[in-house]
Order: sequence, then C-alpha cells, then structure tokens
Amino acid sequence: MRQLLAIASMAAMIAVPFSVQAQAQSPFAKPEDAVKYRQSAFSILGTHTGRVGAVVKGDKPYDKAAVEADVAVMETMSKLPWSAFPAGSDLPNSKAKPEIWKEQDKFKAAAEKMQGEVSKLSTAAKSGDLNAIKTAFGAVGQSCKACHDNYRNK
Amino acid sequence: MRQLLAIASMAAMIAVPFSVQAQAQSPFAKPEDAVKYRQSAFSILGTHTGRVGAVVKGDKPYDKAAVEADVAVMETMSKLPWSAFPAGSDLPNSKAKPEIWKEQDKFKAAAEKMQGEVSKLSTAAKSGDLNAIKTAFGAVGQSCKACHDNYRNK
Repeated sequence: MRQLLAIASMAAMIAVPFSVQAQAQSPFAKPEDAVKYRQSAFSILGTHTGRVGAVVKGDKPYDKAAVEADVAVMETMSKLPWSAFPAGSDLPNSKAKPEIWKEQDKFKAAAEKMQGEVSKLSTAAKSGDLNAIKTAFGAVGQSCKACHDNYRNK
Repeated sequence: MRQLLAIASMAAMIAVPFSVQAQAQSPFAKPEDAVKYRQSAFSILGTHTGRVGAVVKGDKPYDKAAVEADVAVMETMSKLPWSAFPAGSDLPNSKAKPEIWKEQDKFKAAAEKMQGEVSKLSTAAKSGDLNAIKTAFGAVGQSCKACHDNYRNK
C-alpha cells in the first residue's frame, strides 16, 4: 500500500508539466504581478538608456557623473526582469512572444548577453572615456534589439 | 575668464531653489512619462519590500544573501521616483495628491526620510542581524505609510 502511494505520488509529480512547476517556483504570486514587474524594470531601463543615448548622439552634453548614475541604474535594471517570465505569463497586456518559453536557453543567453554589455558600458562610464562609452553603448543597443526582434511583439 | 565663468555658473546653480530646478528641468518629455517612471519605481520597490517583509514576518526563512539583494534593489529604487513629480503630473491615472505640489518641502522631507530609513535597512541587511533588520524594516514601513497617508490617494 505504501509502495502504491509512493508510485502514485511520483506519477503525479511526473504528470505535472514543467511549466506548472516553474510557476510554483516563481517569486510572483500571480502571472500579472510578474508582467507588471518586468514591464516596470524594462521601462526604467529604457528611460535611463535613452538618457545615455542622448549623450552618445550628442543631443545632450557629456557629464561623467550623470552618465555613471544612469548606467548604474541600467545595470541594476538589467538584472531584474529575468525572474519575471514564469510560464503562463504571456498575458494579453504583455508583448512577450511565446518563443520565450519555447526557447528558454536561447532567451536566457540573450538576456545574459545584454547584462554583459551593460556591465561593459558601466566600466566605460567609470573610465570617463566618451569614445569607449559610445562603443559600449552601441553593443548594448544591439543586444536590446536582438532580444526585441526575437522575443517581443511590436 | 574661465574661472569667472565657473564661479558664475556655480552661483547660478546655488541661486535656483531645489524645487524650481526639479520642476523646470524635468528629465521627462511628457508628464505621462514621469507618471509611468515613478509608478514603475514604486512598483519594483514594493515587490522587494514585500519580499523582505515576508522574512520579517517569519513567512519566509531568513537568507542573508537574498535579503541583501532585495534591500539593494530597494535602495536603488528609493532614490528614483523623486525626479518624476514635475508640476502638472497629477494625471488621472496617478494616485498622487495635489498636496505634493503645494507642500514641496514637506514632500521632499518625507522622501528623504524614506531614503534614509532604507539606507539604515541596508546597513542592517549587511550585518546579518535579523533583529536589526526587523527594527530597520519597521522604520521603513513607517516612512512609506507616512508619505502614502499624506500624498497618495487610495
């Protein structure tokens, strides 16, 4: 009887699809909380990326401290969204493409690529070398675009 | 001459009161951008505050590294919203009360109080002393509540 119960419980565990398990381990109580969180992080990331972009494009004068502060926020933000893509969170108000959950490894690699490029931008921002900032910013932009092209609806 | 210009520009900076500077130089192109930005920052702040709160209440086991990471995000977030209350940004989708713009000094003091309490929580989180974390977290909660009571519609 105990064996039967053990098998039954193992079978139940196997029967639970991965996606449901992933949800159970999500730090968000509801999928809509995850959507709100990741959209907030991307929005703040976008704001500060735009400010650095204005300097890179020459629309705003270069101020080392200001760029460093913007890039510091970018760096914190670059790390936040990735825990907020639990399975089942491709809600109607989200632009996330279903490919995110079909290609988890590729999505994770794209996320890590972006974080790496922002980290390099942080080094450049601290150096105070505007040319290095421009180069690093270009790579950040590429990493944003790559992920948006593949995983974000227009 | 360069020295003169430097002094003149410093004097100009000192002469402009903080609140006017903040309003005139709003870093947001449109009031709705400011609302979205501050709501995003408060939302992320709330998420991580909630996670630390669960530990403080004993609903989640204490993990020093996890609490430190949550508090680090709280600390970054605690600094962001305040540039995002330009005059005219009490839009319908905002819960900001008009008192914010009528009592700029008091609002600024409340914002600084919260940042100070989060900074103390950060020190406590780094110490690894759960009792110190609980005390500091209580003070953070009070500072949130004080500002919400006065400046945020239900």
